[in-house]
Amino acid sequence: MSLLVVGTVALDTVETPAAVRTEQLGGSAVYFSYAASYFTTVRMAGVVGEDWPAKYTELLRARRIDVSGLQIVPGAKTFRWHGRYAPNMIDRETIDVQLNVYGDRRPALSDQCRRSPLLFLATGSPHQQLEILDEMTGPQLVVADTTDLWIQDERDTLLKLLQRVSGLMLNDMEACLLTGCARVVQAGLRILELGPTFVVIKRGEHGAVFFSKHETYVLPAFPTPDVVDPTGAGDSFAGGMMGYLAEQRNFEPKTLKEAMAYGILVGSFAVEDYGPDRLGTIDRSAIELRMDRYRKMLSF
Amino acid sequence: MSLLVVGTVALDTVETPAAVRTEQLGGSAVYFSYAASYFTTVRMAGVVGEDWPAKYTELLRARRIDVSGLQIVPGAKTFRWHGRYAPNMIDRETIDVQLNVYGDRRPALSDQCRRSPLLFLATGSPHQQLEILDEMTGPQLVVADTTDLWIQDERDTLLKLLQRVSGLMLNDMEACLLTGCARVVQAGLRILELGPTFVVIKRGEHGAVFFSKHETYVLPAFPTPDVVDPTGAGDSFAGGMMGYLAEQRNFEPKTLKEAMAYGILVGSFAVEDYGPDRLGTIDRSAIELRMDRYRKMLSF
Repeated sequence: MSLLVVGTVALDTVETPAAVRTEQLGGSAVYFSYAASYFTTVRMAGVVGEDWPAKYTELLRARRIDVSGLQIVPGAKTFRWHGRYAPNMIDRETIDVQLNVYGDRRPALSDQCRRSPLLFLATGSPHQQLEILDEMTGPQLVVADTTDLWIQDERDTLLKLLQRVSGLMLNDMEACLLTGCARVVQAGLRILELGPTFVVIKRGEHGAVFFSKHETYVLPAFPTPDVVDPTGAGDSFAGGMMGYLAEQRNFEPKTLKEAMAYGILVGSFAVEDYGPDRLGTIDRSAIELRMDRYRKMLSF
Repeated sequence: MSLLVVGTVALDTVETPAAVRTEQLGGSAVYFSYAASYFTTVRMAGVVGEDWPAKYTELLRARRIDVSGLQIVPGAKTFRWHGRYAPNMIDRETIDVQLNVYGDRRPALSDQCRRSPLLFLATGSPHQQLEILDEMTGPQLVVADTTDLWIQDERDTLLKLLQRVSGLMLNDMEACLLTGCARVVQAGLRILELGPTFVVIKRGEHGAVFFSKHETYVLPAFPTPDVVDPTGAGDSFAGGMMGYLAEQRNFEPKTLKEAMAYGILVGSFAVEDYGPDRLGTIDRSAIELRMDRYRKMLSF
């Protein structure tokens, strides 16, 4: 079952206590696609500028990601993000954001993209997320991400979007901001009343919490000792989860839970090197090996 | 297998967004004992003043806690703590602390107490924790707790203590303070080099992380929606964990993991009402029922 992601494709500059990496491959659609590529054919839609390095497109192709939806806009510059991590590798400061082409236009979707049964709307303006959704031809599962910016600036449009998606993914602070609830468990339950069938609250190094009408559960993060660059962990989580759902071709509660576990594990690999580098070096069997360890960790 | 806890016995004033409770039953030894009482005979050693309400001793007795080590010091006042919780029920501010009798003397241990095979040294001065340890007659398992105050003020003595305990429990910020590590996974591994056979890093609503030479694992908190008063959650966790070990009469890796899960669940009950009230109303079968749900939550 093929899966479409629409999101940012970026050049990231990342500073950690150990090193600085300049203009590395990044963006929500990129991390998502790398993560989903272990499980399914993923179509990536996004816009970049003329300055986009061809070698990055080759890296994506090498992961068998369908990059036909990646549009290079003449005369434009690629979206850039520059962040700096604290020694705990959790807290981060955004040094600079240059929207560039991402601020000007959204990707045009091919007919093939529009027919994708699974759609992930990476964080972006809810207005644009709705436009993309309108272009789709009867998707079976739509999951959206959002961030504090959109919750604050486009709340009404976001609420409309929530009426039309199956799932929402966001982090704990965003969930509290959206609902006014101080506690995550209550925030998740409240979001269900806003429309989605399920909500996943991402908690970084603390794992993720799943909410549906019938169940609430927590799965912890896999405690990898090697955190090199946390950039893209949340998008990798989403890609792993959605990729597994696409592979399994069903969205039953049992499958959703397995999918969340796969998302957590792919996310745990993503942070082990700069950019999506680590995701470029592992294969499915490495994920399954870690899954065995993860299941054992949670058994007693 | 009987279990001795030495710690504070207190009158707590707790402010939450919902209510204020004045001079409720509290203290590390009290929460620990309530939690351990589902599993084993627990002996509680601590000091209180003349103002100690007899009804609180009766509550402890009703849980079949051995209170013969609770000493009422004539002319003295009981330890008092006053805290205020933020709406998220996680962040808290200490409004007032009155050490009173707790600052003046430590409990004298009866011969019976000294012969306890299991000892939990709730947080307190490492100097005093060492003195208590010196009085014991060959305990089989000694676990200590500590806090930032002692890590900062009595570091050298604390390091001596760590050479003599089997286990250390502390929260994530304390673990980082003790080791200088910014990340919890590294902090736990570093503490193992300081002496203990195992380390448990408590993360409140995020559960706990276990470290030994052979394994590192995370178990998440049980996501109870009803958080009324988080006071004593960490001590209840410790009591549940140590109580289960005492009941099982072994400290094998498998038992330690089950014990940590029981600690998490007893802690999840503890926060569902003010003080140790909730722990006074449940029984072992309620814990087992939640354990079934917890195991299911972690299975997929």
